[in-house]
Amino acid sequence: MSGNDKAEVTLFVCTSCRRTLDETETLFDHPGEAIHAAMEARLADEPAIRVEAVDCLAVCKRPATVALSGDGFWTYLVGDLTAEANLDEIEAATRAYLASGNGIIPWRERPVSFRKGVVARMPPLPGRARPAAATPNSTIRNKEAAAS
Amino acid sequence: MSGNDKAEVTLFVCTSCRRTLDETETLFDHPGEAIHAAMEARLADEPAIRVEAVDCLAVCKRPATVALSGDGFWTYLVGDLTAEANLDEIEAATRAYLASGNGIIPWRERPVSFRKGVVARMPPLPGRARPAAATPNSTIRNKEAAAS
Repeated sequence: MSGNDKAEVTLFVCTSCRRTLDETETLFDHPGEAIHAAMEARLADEPAIRVEAVDCLAVCKRPATVALSGDGFWTYLVGDLTAEANLDEIEAATRAYLASGNGIIPWRERPVSFRKGVVARMPPLPGRARPAAATPNSTIRNKEAAAS
Repeated sequence: MSGNDKAEVTLFVCTSCRRTLDETETLFDHPGEAIHAAMEARLADEPAIRVEAVDCLAVCKRPATVALSGDGFWTYLVGDLTAEANLDEIEAATRAYLASGNGIIPWRERPVSFRKGVVARMPPLPGRARPAAATPNSTIRNKEAAAS
């Protein structure tokens, strides 16, 4: 973990997700480990972002899974991510999440993997919500429902 | 929503989840609406619990979905819930969640629908975690992974 106290948002990376590497399902790796290491390095320049490894986000069928969360922000859980294919998109989405101010990244700014990989989202806790972004929630909702 | 300011935990109920009622998928209802109404009534005696309707938790394939969350608590998202089958279990799980102190309900106290229906979980934000419950996290994790 980055350990800073100025973080506004946190990128949780599940490092226990197992990815099967053969048909007999006896060989597997943990793709979240490489994602976590890469994001710690790539996002070290941004004190408002904290990167945390998590032992199980309970989305085991869609390795690897990450979660973006912050006090007053909408939370997003996104799966089907790999270090081989998605590092640039995870980094970009995390920066866009911080910039959104309230956790709702405008649809056109979301990487493809974050449009298709959403496992769940959740509002901020009551009384903690930040100002809404310019994009209306209803538009976001309908597109999210259609993509899932 | 209950609107109280003393809530320690929030039960979010997705009221936009569609449940298909025929094979052609042209008929559907929103099972979360009845769950939300029932939980508002059943949990009105507990000022530490707030019940909130949410317009889309983005878990559209597993209607209806709820989320349990609170400052310093682990968050749990649970799907496949209906008003016909699960009201007693949702109420019991919400009360057990509050009683857990940190959001991790001991496995033996979790209703079956909350063991099998977990969509995702997420830790509290860094620096906000409450004291761990008596049940070790590692045991919980392994059981959650096996059940998903």
